Amino acid sequence: MEKRGKVYLVGAGPGDYELMTLKAKRVLEEADVVLYDRLVGEEILEALPRGAELIDVGKAISEVAKEERTSQSEINEIMERYAREGKKVVRLKGGDPFLFGRGGEEVEFLASRGIEFEVVPGVTSALAVPASVGIPVTHRAYSSTVIIATGHLAEGKDEEGDVGVEWEKIAKIEGTLIILMGVKNLGKIASKLIESGKDPKTGVAVIERGTTKYQRVITATLDKIAEEAERVGVKPPAVIVIGDVVRFYGMRDYGKEGGA
Amino acid sequence: MEKRGKVYLVGAGPGDYELMTLKAKRVLEEADVVLYDRLVGEEILEALPRGAELIDVGKAISEVAKEERTSQSEINEIMERYAREGKKVVRLKGGDPFLFGRGGEEVEFLASRGIEFEVVPGVTSALAVPASVGIPVTHRAYSSTVIIATGHLAEGKDEEGDVGVEWEKIAKIEGTLIILMGVKNLGKIASKLIESGKDPKTGVAVIERGTTKYQRVITATLDKIAEEAERVGVKPPAVIVIGDVVRFYGMRDYGKEGGA
Repeated sequence: MEKRGKVYLVGAGPGDYELMTLKAKRVLEEADVVLYDRLVGEEILEALPRGAELIDVGKAISEVAKEERTSQSEINEIMERYAREGKKVVRLKGGDPFLFGRGGEEVEFLASRGIEFEVVPGVTSALAVPASVGIPVTHRAYSSTVIIATGHLAEGKDEEGDVGVEWEKIAKIEGTLIILMGVKNLGKIASKLIESGKDPKTGVAVIERGTTKYQRVITATLDKIAEEAERVGVKPPAVIVIGDVVRFYGMRDYGKEGGA
Repeated sequence: MEKRGKVYLVGAGPGDYELMTLKAKRVLEEADVVLYDRLVGEEILEALPRGAELIDVGKAISEVAKEERTSQSEINEIMERYAREGKKVVRLKGGDPFLFGRGGEEVEFLASRGIEFEVVPGVTSALAVPASVGIPVTHRAYSSTVIIATGHLAEGKDEEGDVGVEWEKIAKIEGTLIILMGVKNLGKIASKLIESGKDPKTGVAVIERGTTKYQRVITATLDKIAEEAERVGVKPPAVIVIGDVVRFYGMRDYGKEGGA
């Protein structure tokens, strides 16, 4: 009879080591095997348990969905293999595993193979990164609705059948729009939003590598943001915030504690 | 010259003690004063530091926005008073402080008074509670967009000028809709969504007191959910998930570890 292993899908949070949950830390400490990728962030990678087998599954992962997909079946296979050996396996993911983290597909896979698993939610970059620069995603005077969308689908859908993002309809909703994985398509998305009725003077903040020591923030209006992002050379990962709440940025020096 | 205190706006997460961040735990341990309310959850309240002055500011807080508002200026005043005494003040909030947590207003207030502060993001109930019952809020085959809205504004706006929720437009967007603070208005909101074009057979899950030992889940289609919630007597706090991803619920026994 085979031993019963278990897979933990664990959210590592936005990058700051201290924004991991207590449970993520405990589960990591107890792990036999940790599957990670570079989206997890340097600070957290440096603190991974020495006693566990560490597997970098992120070599092929990029913002380009196609490349990412190539590796998903391999990741599934690795998780299954170790779990069947009775190991405690942690699949560590940046942010939250279920918000564009492909956690849903991994859960489906594990369930279909009868492998025990558990999801450990994490602090999502979509909220924490704006918060770390003082931008509240809701505010009673400015926003009662938050929309979070993936930016890797500039044209709404792609050739591999991902369900689309309806930028035209999203443009018409007031509130805060947060785009993850949108650096590459920022220009296209901004144009589409404006064509569909979004005010070109809406505030936008692009926060690169938020909550880490490499954090950079650029702000501009929607009609100028792509140009500005290109000028300063913004690179992924970045969180894009579009809406009136962007006015809160720079109201004060938030973020890291003195010296940290 | 007055000593310099500092206020930390800290997200406590969805209720499970282990879903607090490492930073939240550290900041709490270092606090002189902790302002909390019952939305923080029993497990976390029991673990509050004994050395700090603990102030329950939640007595007047309810889902009714009007009552909540009465107490906000008092909370601000308490934070300011202790900070001016040089104290390390923690304002502990359920979930994430900036997602319908009024963190934005508190930040505005503190900045306007020149009081130093820092935001410590938390795991939001909006994502963690669905995750804890196996529902991924995104999935490439079912949802590329997540909308999070407050349900306390059934009519879109209220008499105190909150910016509204555009249920009519939201109804037309595919993807996952998550409603917080929506138990009382569930019937009105469901009707409005259906009238505006949402498929009455869309799946809905209502998760009461998610991630705690009191958790209860009910599921039904959009046209039946209000009736069902009333039948079983669902009470706040609860997270409402509307969308095709609800099909993932019950695929397997997720959630708490054995015995926990």
